[in-house]
Amino acid sequence: MDFRLEKDSIGERKIPETLYYGINTKRAQENFNLGSRSVNLKLIYEIALIKKAAAMVNQRLKQLTEEKAQAIITACEEVIEGKFDQEFIVSAFQGGAGTSTNMNVNEVVANRAIEILGGTKGDYDVVHPLNDVNLSQSTNDVYPTALRIAAIHMLRKLSYSLAELQAALQGKENEFSDVLKLGRTELMDALPMMLGQEFGAYAKGIERDRWRVYKGEERLRQINLGGTAIGTGFNASHEYIFMITDTIQELTGLGLARSDYPMDITQNNDVFVEVSGLLKACSTNLLKIANDLRLLSSGPKGGFGEIELPQMQAGSTIMPGKVNPVIPEMIGQVAMKVMANDYAITMAASAGQLELNSFMPLIAESLLESLELLNQGVTLFREKCIKGIKANVKKCHETLEKSAALAAALIHHIGYDQAAHIARKALREDKTIRDVLREESDFLDSRIDEILNPLEVTKPGIPGRRVK
Amino acid sequence: MDFRLEKDSIGERKIPETLYYGINTKRAQENFNLGSRSVNLKLIYEIALIKKAAAMVNQRLKQLTEEKAQAIITACEEVIEGKFDQEFIVSAFQGGAGTSTNMNVNEVVANRAIEILGGTKGDYDVVHPLNDVNLSQSTNDVYPTALRIAAIHMLRKLSYSLAELQAALQGKENEFSDVLKLGRTELMDALPMMLGQEFGAYAKGIERDRWRVYKGEERLRQINLGGTAIGTGFNASHEYIFMITDTIQELTGLGLARSDYPMDITQNNDVFVEVSGLLKACSTNLLKIANDLRLLSSGPKGGFGEIELPQMQAGSTIMPGKVNPVIPEMIGQVAMKVMANDYAITMAASAGQLELNSFMPLIAESLLESLELLNQGVTLFREKCIKGIKANVKKCHETLEKSAALAAALIHHIGYDQAAHIARKALREDKTIRDVLREESDFLDSRIDEILNPLEVTKPGIPGRRVK
Amino acid sequence: MDFRLEKDSIGERKIPETLYYGINTKRAQENFNLGSRSVNLKLIYEIALIKKAAAMVNQRLKQLTEEKAQAIITACEEVIEGKFDQEFIVSAFQGGAGTSTNMNVNEVVANRAIEILGGTKGDYDVVHPLNDVNLSQSTNDVYPTALRIAAIHMLRKLSYSLAELQAALQGKENEFSDVLKLGRTELMDALPMMLGQEFGAYAKGIERDRWRVYKGEERLRQINLGGTAIGTGFNASHEYIFMITDTIQELTGLGLARSDYPMDITQNNDVFVEVSGLLKACSTNLLKIANDLRLLSSGPKGGFGEIELPQMQAGSTIMPGKVNPVIPEMIGQVAMKVMANDYAITMAASAGQLELNSFMPLIAESLLESLELLNQGVTLFREKCIKGIKANVKKCHETLEKSAALAAALIHHIGYDQAAHIARKALREDKTIRDVLREESDFLDSRIDEILNPLEVTKPGIPGRRVK
Amino acid sequence: MDFRLEKDSIGERKIPETLYYGINTKRAQENFNLGSRSVNLKLIYEIALIKKAAAMVNQRLKQLTEEKAQAIITACEEVIEGKFDQEFIVSAFQGGAGTSTNMNVNEVVANRAIEILGGTKGDYDVVHPLNDVNLSQSTNDVYPTALRIAAIHMLRKLSYSLAELQAALQGKENEFSDVLKLGRTELMDALPMMLGQEFGAYAKGIERDRWRVYKGEERLRQINLGGTAIGTGFNASHEYIFMITDTIQELTGLGLARSDYPMDITQNNDVFVEVSGLLKACSTNLLKIANDLRLLSSGPKGGFGEIELPQMQAGSTIMPGKVNPVIPEMIGQVAMKVMANDYAITMAASAGQLELNSFMPLIAESLLESLELLNQGVTLFREKCIKGIKANVKKCHETLEKSAALAAALIHHIGYDQAAHIARKALREDKTIRDVLREESDFLDSRIDEILNPLEVTKPGIPGRRVK
Repeated sequence: MDFRLEKDSIGERKIPETLYYGINTKRAQENFNLGSRSVNLKLIYEIALIKKAAAMVNQRLKQLTEEKAQAIITACEEVIEGKFDQEFIVSAFQGGAGTSTNMNVNEVVANRAIEILGGTKGDYDVVHPLNDVNLSQSTNDVYPTALRIAAIHMLRKLSYSLAELQAALQGKENEFSDVLKLGRTELMDALPMMLGQEFGAYAKGIERDRWRVYKGEERLRQINLGGTAIGTGFNASHEYIFMITDTIQELTGLGLARSDYPMDITQNNDVFVEVSGLLKACSTNLLKIANDLRLLSSGPKGGFGEIELPQMQAGSTIMPGKVNPVIPEMIGQVAMKVMANDYAITMAASAGQLELNSFMPLIAESLLESLELLNQGVTLFREKCIKGIKANVKKCHETLEKSAALAAALIHHIGYDQAAHIARKALREDKTIRDVLREESDFLDSRIDEILNPLEVTKPGIPGRRVK
Repeated sequence: MDFRLEKDSIGERKIPETLYYGINTKRAQENFNLGSRSVNLKLIYEIALIKKAAAMVNQRLKQLTEEKAQAIITACEEVIEGKFDQEFIVSAFQGGAGTSTNMNVNEVVANRAIEILGGTKGDYDVVHPLNDVNLSQSTNDVYPTALRIAAIHMLRKLSYSLAELQAALQGKENEFSDVLKLGRTELMDALPMMLGQEFGAYAKGIERDRWRVYKGEERLRQINLGGTAIGTGFNASHEYIFMITDTIQELTGLGLARSDYPMDITQNNDVFVEVSGLLKACSTNLLKIANDLRLLSSGPKGGFGEIELPQMQAGSTIMPGKVNPVIPEMIGQVAMKVMANDYAITMAASAGQLELNSFMPLIAESLLESLELLNQGVTLFREKCIKGIKANVKKCHETLEKSAALAAALIHHIGYDQAAHIARKALREDKTIRDVLREESDFLDSRIDEILNPLEVTKPGIPGRRVK
Repeated sequence: MDFRLEKDSIGERKIPETLYYGINTKRAQENFNLGSRSVNLKLIYEIALIKKAAAMVNQRLKQLTEEKAQAIITACEEVIEGKFDQEFIVSAFQGGAGTSTNMNVNEVVANRAIEILGGTKGDYDVVHPLNDVNLSQSTNDVYPTALRIAAIHMLRKLSYSLAELQAALQGKENEFSDVLKLGRTELMDALPMMLGQEFGAYAKGIERDRWRVYKGEERLRQINLGGTAIGTGFNASHEYIFMITDTIQELTGLGLARSDYPMDITQNNDVFVEVSGLLKACSTNLLKIANDLRLLSSGPKGGFGEIELPQMQAGSTIMPGKVNPVIPEMIGQVAMKVMANDYAITMAASAGQLELNSFMPLIAESLLESLELLNQGVTLFREKCIKGIKANVKKCHETLEKSAALAAALIHHIGYDQAAHIARKALREDKTIRDVLREESDFLDSRIDEILNPLEVTKPGIPGRRVK
Repeated sequence: MDFRLEKDSIGERKIPETLYYGINTKRAQENFNLGSRSVNLKLIYEIALIKKAAAMVNQRLKQLTEEKAQAIITACEEVIEGKFDQEFIVSAFQGGAGTSTNMNVNEVVANRAIEILGGTKGDYDVVHPLNDVNLSQSTNDVYPTALRIAAIHMLRKLSYSLAELQAALQGKENEFSDVLKLGRTELMDALPMMLGQEFGAYAKGIERDRWRVYKGEERLRQINLGGTAIGTGFNASHEYIFMITDTIQELTGLGLARSDYPMDITQNNDVFVEVSGLLKACSTNLLKIANDLRLLSSGPKGGFGEIELPQMQAGSTIMPGKVNPVIPEMIGQVAMKVMANDYAITMAASAGQLELNSFMPLIAESLLESLELLNQGVTLFREKCIKGIKANVKKCHETLEKSAALAAALIHHIGYDQAAHIARKALREDKTIRDVLREESDFLDSRIDEILNPLEVTKPGIPGRRVK
């Protein structure tokens, strides 16, 4: 293999001639050789986008020649298109507050731009990773801005996925709006309700999640481009500072705004904790719904068995015909993982010191993973589970009939004591309230049907009065 | 001691005659005898307020006589005034989704109302804990509503405390606006800045916290009063449902609204996770600020020593004159505790099942504790720490002079390479940039003062150009 | 009210004459006025015990007169007996790494000793809080040692409580050893098992917990008494250092050992993280068991209904006769709280810096709370829940019969395909495997009883072969 | 592309002819298409090893022909060698409690064995994924056993890495054993100590970690192979149950033992919580050490500057010569990530229900990631940071001299009051204790050298007495 020799302030390193990254990337790969995930590509693409914007501005300000700027812009676009994905090799848990990721992009873009201009990779006189590609920038303003942009794009996608999930749940609310069933509190038989109402309550939670996620974008719109190393704007011209925000707005189509206090944005990461907290709130709803669906579909004979989930894959070989609720189990794990990522984000964000937070890479990795997992998970949950749920109407009715829940409807007709007597007898003798009422009262069957009409008990009001 | 005998569906219990609580409270005390905290009184008071509102509505609807209603109302008011604090004895970690807390209030109010009406405690024919005090209610609508009201009141207080903290920080931003100092990234010497800017960046984070906490109220305004056991409204008349929300609005003065889907509010607790997440975001800022203040005030000789915190208490006996940063250490622990409470709230909220969440008591305890700790902690932080902080101007200047940070200002005057040479020499020989520049260049002292004016480096722009 | 005037290096404070604490405690109360819990008394008592031990040693070393030493010893004993509980008023979340708690004890002991010697409280010439009560000590060696001793005592209690819980579960294992029931994986019908086996599996988890907790003591035995401020032993004589460990061993009866590297013990808190992690592992078992019991007892008609929990308190007014699983719900919350405390302990322990951890008060409060909650909770769980559990044998059998679980037993008699056919038909037509087998095969009833003997399926081996 | 058609109980799927996985894997890939990590290969390899062991046993028991068994064994070995890594494509967060991972291995092994026997992939009459490869097994005994084996191997590696880290820290303890410096508590100047003692205290923490991790293996040795679906051993012959444990012991060389209660191992996951808790305790030490190193090396001029970390990569372009503590920053993030993974493991383990825990895939992924990150991270920390640390002796001495820490050494020579006076004067006038002592006392310089010999203050004892 052929190599080129690259130098930095610490020494030299041989880099295979075919590769676009340089000595800084190489050192970082070795330094953070954790054998695990490298940086999320969504973050890489947004960093490249910022470098494209910076090149555009620097060209207009005559800081870069048109030729050089165009080469950089083209190289950035190729990075964004995914042509160099395999060149981004630094660990997601790198030290240095993101410097190595920024340098990885600088080096790949520079070497590709050199190629475009007919040069040889490594000949940084043609295009320099720092002096040209990173011009007017610092890791400390590029990196948090790229993370904000990547997160906003994914929040929008997630908001849309949640809207679709909400719609699917509301579809089931309507579909099951007349399926009477037993409601339970603390897992104990409580009062009658409609199966549709279960899904309606889920949909309301997801509606809040959708709104949360949608509004989460607002927390991320302030950016510190032009703040450079510590937010004071040292080494970035006034013209650049104003133009870069406009340019990145145009390129992203997002309502980004220049912070009036870039030092704040450079060092404080509470907004990521807040956004992650919203994802965590969403996760509690998802976990609760997933657990409920597993409970309601448990059985088929030895559980609640009130609904059937679509069968997505065979479950067991020892137990013929067994099918498991694998999709709710998956979404449950996604929810727990998002909660765990929130822990990491909280710890990392609170560990910032003075003018910078050294642990931004952990924040970025955790937040972007949470967003990806939720977006994909919510979509799979809707498509492969919610949409195909069927009611087991017979089981719903039987369970309600067997329970003493309808005894509550008797209170206004025969008094609390007599109602309680009938309830206890029904439970003791394993009969329905209906049966015991027949035995113990003079009501005609048609009247019993009226009184025990559980529909009435699923709505506001006092059943007794309503009958009048 | 004299006792009265009380009965319930399970059996009997002797209750000391002097006490206002009854058999349900007694059993709960024994069942949940964890030897730890009992329920937060702020929650008790709001439950009593709801019972007052219910009595007012039930009187208007002729479900309670005026005499009985008035006795209940008066008893509720006395509870709210704190006259019966010692009667609320059930563990904060009780099972039963809050039923025992609701019954504790029902029993105390009933027995006090009986007394008011001239009866003997325990004679529930006069006023009945359930039939009268709890009329039209269920734990499952009273408890979450009371928690929302208590939380909203405390969010408002906290928002105010944070506004005051923000103002105090901005006061320091102004006071120290011309104190030049060294900025640091990753704890390494970086660029010059103003000491005021440190506090300005803190103030911005707290400004967001204030806004977060202020807006947090909106998440809590929807209530499910009238939803009763599972949110269907069974056993609550239509008239009651409409009137109770209006009445509780009037009594609290808060913008509470009847949920259009009470089943949702009854079973879903994601809003508490969201609000706790906001408190957690605030805590990351507080922890970061507290850690920075400890670092900046470290020493007095062996640390950064750039600021002095007010001395609040003696620190050590072995080490004469030692004073420790006890207030930032306290607020740091408050922040960590809020994060831990958020963990508990998240776990509890995600463990809800079907029509109810059995773990609401843990949510309530944790959320109210976080709010109280933050409100008190933020106030102490401002009064006993922030307000009294003094700058050690001499140390700030000396440290900046000794560092190589000013070398960056040379780049546009003598070029990057020469600037780097001077920086390295200064560090190696333990001299100031100023000294080395005198040795190595022909600049006059007055010119050196101009060039190394660190004020220029603390603002946006390229120092070199600006001089022109 | 009469006051005495006390002074410290910062200034003066008036202290009510009747009180035993002094100016340091007063300042700490004001500085950390968080309106929440004060320091756990179990920690206070162990600090007093260490001061007693130090007085004994200092007397022997002629650093204290016998008279003074005896007065201090008596005062310490009175503190340990609980006579001054109301004097310990500093917040559990105090700054200062425990200094204020140490001073609170020093002051109360000094003033009580002064009284014993006939002096007036506040006349520290008689007995001095620092020079006499705190002699040869530092907060930084007293506080972590006291926490270790308090934790060891509570670990022993908890280990015993867990052993009793294990025994109770094994009692149920035996009691239900012949109750056939349906086993479930992923909440879906799986294979037959014995109800006793459920409890046997729980008992095994608790057996590990008991062992964990028992062995946890070993992590806490190394102490740093004599290390004073940073662990170097400055200001503590060699004689004192050796004698104090022996004396505290004698007084506590615990196998405490002097660390060979006291600087380690002074600054590192990983052992508390480890012990809290053991409590967390225990909590996962408790939460799992509690959730299982809630599930198995759900109903009585609309749930699994295989067991009945003892009825501990009335559950609802709207729903006659409803009783809830309040004890498992309580233990579930205890488990979640222990997990949340573990979060706090982890954050606090990892935030130590250089020679000390400023956040030890949060570690102490959280660890001792977890231990107390678990010890009480486990005892209540056993007494008020586990011991009274009854099997619903009929429901266990019915559910098993209705399920297709027994189809697995057919595989070796009629082949997998035919077994699957029978299983599917049974589920589809809502019949038992037994019924369908009667319809579809020529087996005599007696032979069917043999083949479908579910006992065989609850043991290792291949049912088909075994019959031969 | 050519395809083969595969069938399962749900329907059909086309599988590219070149691939070894089958329809179950394909469905799982689609069902859990989270766009994220697939299952950790270390887990895959151990599953393959168990299948190899099962084939060996089944051959001996005449359940598999020698030819078929040998083909399966060879196929398993090829999987373990990594020849089919790209065939394991199911998400790490899959539902189904690991069934899909087990089936993925079954299918790849079956198709490779078919090939070996000269058949065509998909012709499961030759070798069947379930009837042959999975013979006598269930996901529910294979999966947890494989996780235990993988974890034990990694614990051993980690224990070794920690031992090397401990040795490196002890190397620095010796190297810096005579470098006097200032000790600090709560970041405030405290007492003199040796720089070596800093590293000695770190080494003690890591020594405990090494022991913890080493002993962690014991928690994982009990396995449930032969327990099959719910731990009852249904469908596994007695002979198999005994032989499989022996065989897997031989193949792994580990002290694995058959659990006496396989139902316990099948459903309870507390041991993984315990082991993860040990890793978390280790992480608190790593985070504390990393933070200390960042603090001690802060500067070079504007911080503590007492040590220098090896320079691993360039830090900044704007700030010439800036180098950042990237390795401690990396290890800090590794520590936080391990803590976050512990959160996920705790939640997942406590969410088990009845005879199985559906969330084992999240436990497995999180635990194995923590182990890998720690093992790699600890090694990098030692090689690229600890080993190269240099003392800045001059700075250590200067800081100590400037501080008032030596004033403590005067107490026994001139009394506490006079010592405090000198300390205060030194701090106020920015002089050393030595200088003020010269001004204010009659001590000769040689005597001052004796008295202020800070060496004495870094050891146990009372400096005053020792001098005599």
